[in-house]
Amino acid sequence: MNLAEKIDVYEGFPIEGISFKDINSLIMDPEAYKEMVDLLVEKTKDLGATKVVSTESRGYILGCPLAYALGIGFVPVRKPGKLPGKTLSESYDLEYGQDTVEIQEKGINPGDKVILIDDLLATGGTLKASADLVKKLGGDITKVLTLIELTDLKGADKLKDYDYESIIQYPA
Amino acid sequence: MNLAEKIDVYEGFPIEGISFKDINSLIMDPEAYKEMVDLLVEKTKDLGATKVVSTESRGYILGCPLAYALGIGFVPVRKPGKLPGKTLSESYDLEYGQDTVEIQEKGINPGDKVILIDDLLATGGTLKASADLVKKLGGDITKVLTLIELTDLKGADKLKDYDYESIIQYPA
Repeated sequence: MNLAEKIDVYEGFPIEGISFKDINSLIMDPEAYKEMVDLLVEKTKDLGATKVVSTESRGYILGCPLAYALGIGFVPVRKPGKLPGKTLSESYDLEYGQDTVEIQEKGINPGDKVILIDDLLATGGTLKASADLVKKLGGDITKVLTLIELTDLKGADKLKDYDYESIIQYPA
Repeated sequence: MNLAEKIDVYEGFPIEGISFKDINSLIMDPEAYKEMVDLLVEKTKDLGATKVVSTESRGYILGCPLAYALGIGFVPVRKPGKLPGKTLSESYDLEYGQDTVEIQEKGINPGDKVILIDDLLATGGTLKASADLVKKLGGDITKVLTLIELTDLKGADKLKDYDYESIIQYPA
């Protein structure tokens, strides 16, 4: 199956000039969703990973079934203020302004081998900040995966310290 | 395994007077996460369901691995403005004000048999609105499931037309 053909592209969503890649059309298709997760499992099953980390909310669509299939724990990275208990946060620059992501300290134990996974790599700010959070808690980033990579935005440059891989590439 | 013991409870989060049930402590635990999803599969595998529907973002943590394990499609219900293409939205009353949820029309085909699943049932507004969206698109609600039910809030009353079930119950 060509997974790329399962992704609907909407021009001008959410704003003019953006070509929106809608992964929902893929995950609504039983065979495509299963094939995508099985492919993620194939790419990660021999890494000895102990945790999957994803950012809300679309990252969960890949990260949760992957964690379940690998039989390891899932740790969410969220917007600030949504996670109870002791948390660690990391800010990063956007084109205009800043954004912040947060993780629970209990989510990562020193020595955890982490698969970091998201639906899409654009400029790479969110994934880089999430990787930094994992490392500050003593975890090791074993693999970084996205379903989609927008190659012209060069987000992979921010992840050059890691073993990064994408399944489907678009220019932007 | 007693799944309820895996849920950390934080008093006064996010605001005074709320006793927050943190499912993250459960899903970070590999055995607990697997046991929870396997239990959801057990409760739904003979229903002949064709879609799993969940609301962002915590609902995905249950709904995505369930859809993957059952080999059926996953359809997200989101806050307004986040979904491209033709959408249908439904508003519902909160204690103060209103909230709205949205679904893509392509997500449900007439005759789809839907498992609606979320992490927690409180007053039931979100789940009721999500069920209404599925029905307006011609889908049939085969089962409604939550991991947690806050029984004193009587959200189950709003779901009395459906086969509703929760795994863990707290008063509030």
